Amino acid sequence: MRAGPSQEEIRRHNLGALLRHVHLGGPTSRAELTSRMGLNRSTIMALTADLTAAGLVREELPRQTRRAGRPSLVVRPESAKVYVFAFDVGVDRMVAARVGLGGVILDRRQVERRREPFSVEEEIGRLAGFARQMLRKTREDTVCVGIGAAFAGGVARADGVVRFGPNLDAYDLPFGEELGRRLGLGLPVAVGNDANLGALAEQSRGLGVGCRDLIYLHGDVGIGGGVIVGGQLLGGHQGYGGEVGHMVINPGGRPCGCGSKGCWEAEVGERALLELAGRFGKKTGREAVRAVVDAADMGDAQAQEALRRVGDWLGLGVANLVNLFNPEIVVFGGMLRDLYLGAAAQVRSRIATDALPASREHLRLRTSALGDDATLMGAAELAFSHVLADPLEALARVSS
Amino acid sequence: MRAGPSQEEIRRHNLGALLRHVHLGGPTSRAELTSRMGLNRSTIMALTADLTAAGLVREELPRQTRRAGRPSLVVRPESAKVYVFAFDVGVDRMVAARVGLGGVILDRRQVERRREPFSVEEEIGRLAGFARQMLRKTREDTVCVGIGAAFAGGVARADGVVRFGPNLDAYDLPFGEELGRRLGLGLPVAVGNDANLGALAEQSRGLGVGCRDLIYLHGDVGIGGGVIVGGQLLGGHQGYGGEVGHMVINPGGRPCGCGSKGCWEAEVGERALLELAGRFGKKTGREAVRAVVDAADMGDAQAQEALRRVGDWLGLGVANLVNLFNPEIVVFGGMLRDLYLGAAAQVRSRIATDALPASREHLRLRTSALGDDATLMGAAELAFSHVLADPLEALARVSS
Repeated sequence: MRAGPSQEEIRRHNLGALLRHVHLGGPTSRAELTSRMGLNRSTIMALTADLTAAGLVREELPRQTRRAGRPSLVVRPESAKVYVFAFDVGVDRMVAARVGLGGVILDRRQVERRREPFSVEEEIGRLAGFARQMLRKTREDTVCVGIGAAFAGGVARADGVVRFGPNLDAYDLPFGEELGRRLGLGLPVAVGNDANLGALAEQSRGLGVGCRDLIYLHGDVGIGGGVIVGGQLLGGHQGYGGEVGHMVINPGGRPCGCGSKGCWEAEVGERALLELAGRFGKKTGREAVRAVVDAADMGDAQAQEALRRVGDWLGLGVANLVNLFNPEIVVFGGMLRDLYLGAAAQVRSRIATDALPASREHLRLRTSALGDDATLMGAAELAFSHVLADPLEALARVSS
Repeated sequence: MRAGPSQEEIRRHNLGALLRHVHLGGPTSRAELTSRMGLNRSTIMALTADLTAAGLVREELPRQTRRAGRPSLVVRPESAKVYVFAFDVGVDRMVAARVGLGGVILDRRQVERRREPFSVEEEIGRLAGFARQMLRKTREDTVCVGIGAAFAGGVARADGVVRFGPNLDAYDLPFGEELGRRLGLGLPVAVGNDANLGALAEQSRGLGVGCRDLIYLHGDVGIGGGVIVGGQLLGGHQGYGGEVGHMVINPGGRPCGCGSKGCWEAEVGERALLELAGRFGKKTGREAVRAVVDAADMGDAQAQEALRRVGDWLGLGVANLVNLFNPEIVVFGGMLRDLYLGAAAQVRSRIATDALPASREHLRLRTSALGDDATLMGAAELAFSHVLADPLEALARVSS
């Protein structure tokens, strides 16, 4: 705060804040915006007029009103017209989607992938092809305002390069640059670690709305973590923070793809579960994990024992995170949703033993509210973020 | 940012910012303040005049100047007149100090303590007695602007109560309230976890100046952690974050004071080291730890093996933290200074094995620049924080 922000800076800030309200909260009446934002009615009117002129929102009469008097106009995001492209690259599948302002999935494409090293040529080409298919179906009066991508690997904050993605055998991969080049939309591609983006999505429009301290755990083949600390995503010095899967919890234990042993993801990952259940080498992926949970439900003793042991390691790792971060909520996403649902008692019991009573007393454990789209929706939020920070500037850049 | 801050709010913010500059950076010329704060000369003059009138700083001609022309006046904090009381309660010692603006220790008292349950009556009485002794020696024109305390335990953010301090057998202890009552200065006592405050001190005036991602590890009998994430202290939902000592790294390992087994502090703490070195049950504390390091230096094979094993666990825990937080710097304080100096090669080797290459590539490992005063200085910073946030308001409260 030097000499204080100018009127113009304040206006731009407020435009972003209003747009964020309707983007995350959905259609909202002017009266509600007035009270929530602490601004007066005429300011809200002026801001709404600016956003309407820019094509970002529109105002409508409410469908029904129970109050007497003139109803307050409702401000809606222009979800069908203003959108981003969001991509999600996991070990077993890739997703591309067109997501409208307000977080509406307008269109999507998905493909299963083989567990082979990530192919720049073929797989980035596939994602770009999906985007082109979806683009052909858009109307002329629509505008793409950003592109975001989630990748199952460690992403450098400085340049968006995927530095390491052991489960996809991807190292030093300029994923965003390459995808941006192939899309040819003249927009940069913002890239983030999938679990980090899952955490952002849960905080924005999932279970973590209003939470300042949240951990999102994403199970794919490995385990990724996204940690929100004091309202902000933990990135660390260069963006690699939150690599919970490589916390060693069992020294000398199972070998991990990172080269170490006894990492959390080695003890809790898909392979450990399938091996313990006597099912390794047959099916893989979510279906295989669900099959173990189902078998345990049906009384299969080996599946039950596998779940018990993996659930114990899962609980131990969560207990460590509870001691380290004192989170309000831990969200299980991806494969960990299934695993947690199958082993919740074991997980809770281990947390009760190993987490400090004060640190766990208000803890909530939940499965992701966004289901398998948490990471994809996080990529969309990443793509929208610059529009919400300064809507007019962002639009000017897009249309120039 | 509603309608934007008022002129008065901006002025108060700038007063705090200027005071923070000279508090943390020492005497600074007006010319330098002008350039560092991005404000014009007349604003700096006005702010300095206000702070001078309030008795917080004074202006002086520089002792020497090499430049031609009129020398720029130097703004100095009124270290001898404006001070806080800082307290530090560890397992083996208690410290009380009078710390002047600018971080100058003006006076201090220290007492060793026995390893017995913390006694409210006797020990808080002792600390208050220290403060009274120091108070009697102050001049009449001095003013105490705050009181801060570091405690080796988990402290609730909401009310400053020590919720758990297993190594001091302290639970649900209203330490700040009780100390404040006995001091009778009419000022509240701000309390924080000792390692958290050590992290703040290292960030403010130690090795972490300018660092946004720092971990301070404090070895006492146990291990505490203070984690700075993106420039902010990690507190978690209720203030208990950073309990790195209770991260389980060796399931089924040594019993820990928290009731669990294989916690980091159980594997790395003083007891583990002394037991492995065949010296448990004799001396305890820092001297005993240093004796093991010295013995290893002199070729004592059992001491060397003890250091190697404890150093390995120390490195494993740091590797986990590196994967979780991607810090720029890890600072070893308290007993861990000695331990790290005695086992640095082991620690580094383990980090090289277990931390992800990207996460550790720019990592620096250091021993505390503030030595055994890191936690005490953190308590002082906590006490000064409201003065730096709004100097005039804070002074008005003190003098009313």
